[in-house]
Amino acid sequence: MTRQAWVLGAASNRFGKMKETGREAASRVALEAIQMAGLDPNEIGYTFVSNAFGVAERQAHIGPLINTALGIPEVPSHTVESACSSSSAALHDAYVHVAGGFLDAALVVGVEKLSHLDTLNATSYFAMGADYPFESHNGATFPGLYATIADAHVKRYGTETEQLGSVAVKNHLNASLNPHAHFQKPITMDTYLNSPVIASPLRLYDCCPFSDGAAAVVVVAAEKYPNPGMEPLVIRASARAGSIAAMHDRPELTGLPASQRASQVAFKQAKVEPSQIDFMEVHDCFTIAELVALEDMGFFPRGEAGKATAEGLTARDGKLPVNPSGGLKAKGHPISATGASQVVEIFEQFNGMAGGRQVPKSNVALAHNVGATGSSASVHIFSRR
Amino acid sequence: MTRQAWVLGAASNRFGKMKETGREAASRVALEAIQMAGLDPNEIGYTFVSNAFGVAERQAHIGPLINTALGIPEVPSHTVESACSSSSAALHDAYVHVAGGFLDAALVVGVEKLSHLDTLNATSYFAMGADYPFESHNGATFPGLYATIADAHVKRYGTETEQLGSVAVKNHLNASLNPHAHFQKPITMDTYLNSPVIASPLRLYDCCPFSDGAAAVVVVAAEKYPNPGMEPLVIRASARAGSIAAMHDRPELTGLPASQRASQVAFKQAKVEPSQIDFMEVHDCFTIAELVALEDMGFFPRGEAGKATAEGLTARDGKLPVNPSGGLKAKGHPISATGASQVVEIFEQFNGMAGGRQVPKSNVALAHNVGATGSSASVHIFSRR
Repeated sequence: MTRQAWVLGAASNRFGKMKETGREAASRVALEAIQMAGLDPNEIGYTFVSNAFGVAERQAHIGPLINTALGIPEVPSHTVESACSSSSAALHDAYVHVAGGFLDAALVVGVEKLSHLDTLNATSYFAMGADYPFESHNGATFPGLYATIADAHVKRYGTETEQLGSVAVKNHLNASLNPHAHFQKPITMDTYLNSPVIASPLRLYDCCPFSDGAAAVVVVAAEKYPNPGMEPLVIRASARAGSIAAMHDRPELTGLPASQRASQVAFKQAKVEPSQIDFMEVHDCFTIAELVALEDMGFFPRGEAGKATAEGLTARDGKLPVNPSGGLKAKGHPISATGASQVVEIFEQFNGMAGGRQVPKSNVALAHNVGATGSSASVHIFSRR
Repeated sequence: MTRQAWVLGAASNRFGKMKETGREAASRVALEAIQMAGLDPNEIGYTFVSNAFGVAERQAHIGPLINTALGIPEVPSHTVESACSSSSAALHDAYVHVAGGFLDAALVVGVEKLSHLDTLNATSYFAMGADYPFESHNGATFPGLYATIADAHVKRYGTETEQLGSVAVKNHLNASLNPHAHFQKPITMDTYLNSPVIASPLRLYDCCPFSDGAAAVVVVAAEKYPNPGMEPLVIRASARAGSIAAMHDRPELTGLPASQRASQVAFKQAKVEPSQIDFMEVHDCFTIAELVALEDMGFFPRGEAGKATAEGLTARDGKLPVNPSGGLKAKGHPISATGASQVVEIFEQFNGMAGGRQVPKSNVALAHNVGATGSSASVHIFSRR
């Protein structure tokens, strides 16, 4: 019933602190993605934008503003929010509209700007993604919640500090080769080990930064674009799942049920096994999240991802490169831009645009994006034509 | 390529001031709509929720919370925002997912709660739907912006105060028969004329109230539910369009281009003429908006809707009943619940549940929902099987 959908263009700004407004950054990367796809803005049939905390800029309803900047004000739009998985949810939405035959070309844009707020205010915005009356209202913010996951993982599987640190060292190294990245300096294990504890057992370098940023992706119906100028990403699977938000109500803390479910659905949909994935971008808002993601999706047995990472298996030149972009951890995590930016990385890898961080093999790739502490998750699988 | 999609259940709470939180109200009406459709929550494949200003309750990412309350935490969700057209955009999204074959049953829930804020703070939230740096930042809020539209309409077409007042009198009368309505008392033309001017030419009774509220709609694939317990609304058209947000950049102010475009697309998609519409719910956030909507969608020539309203043509027992629910004007306008609540009214009319406000004929109906001053608009057309 569905038709093949492609990602045909993808663009990102440099994550970090943006001087321009969210709408300006979003419009700029959107135009870049459209041009990369070889399209005219007039070909876009709908804009799916993510901007979870636009109210921090006193601006909701950002779609018409972006479309107006693109010269296509008449094109419909809506904003898709799913906390930190907002723009992968927007991509899922765009995929359905295109694969279902309702649109021939769709624009997905994710943008977030919170750097003009103080840290406490920004943190309290992020915490709105959790279960407010039970978690955030009682002082739980994401570093504390993910520390709870890390603590459970350490207690159950003996996960070691240096294993968490090896995620940070790897991702900072990858980010040092990524011009889109917030942090472009490698760190050593010593730097990691000497960094202060933020929420035990998580240290400063276990945590992703607060970043501004924007990323855009163009999704088209393959049959309508027979001669693509770029190597398209064939969307082989687009899956989402949910879970209980409140961590205290979950039966176990060492994995995220939504990641498990979304990946199972995605592998089935794509008719692909984990062993066929060449590289992937996963949601490493904290180092522990990368390990849990790899275990949740079946790439490593429970409790084994830390050891594998420390041994270099997930390095850029390892058997299974994970987060060659630097991940949320070091590329940065502008909430609503993150999901789209994972696709930008995969697009650049498929098109040989990744420079020094190019992975050895890029035929099949996976993007995994989590909302909050896993009350939502998206998994996309892409392949070459 | 698409399959028929139905609205098979629809529920709303009473609009006004809610004591419970948004998530509680949303979960409650969602369960009611699911039960009305004769479904078990487990049949829901995806939840499309609207809650544009959830941050006013410190709560984003509300989908997983609603799904958890429904006992289906594993079901994916995302939040759809398009200012005041949020939940009609969510309905459009659900329609595409179901008609495209990606879901057999979808839940649409719209909810808003802002009554715990003071008026100024609430107004500033609403104003985020406009073009912030150019409009809201300079003090323009929606009463002023719609007053500009009204002023242009008065100057161009000679629209009379009593014509605007006749919209208010009609919609308050309809709302007096609607147990979901915020205001349940009729008003007289004298009351209208004696009410203070808010933003010239608009008076207090030209303006919709600030309301809390929640409304939910269940969308299913017709082929999967061959024996519906309720009279389903066949979704004959689901169309959206955009426009320049900033009013000062628009070529004319007496109509909304997005409403014009969305209605044209919808009529074409449904293969229906305006003359075939038996009744409709239109976006009357201010009385002038109802007149403009009727003219934008081609129900009356430009400048004629006021006269038609004053003559009773759009009354509940008139030739073309408009806003039998009482509309945003008197039923109330809880931003993200409004689009879904228009569908609740049409569902109740089709199922003979509208009590004293039952319209004479209900075979084909239209719902028109606007975001901000028309930078987004949705038009849905429904018919009986």
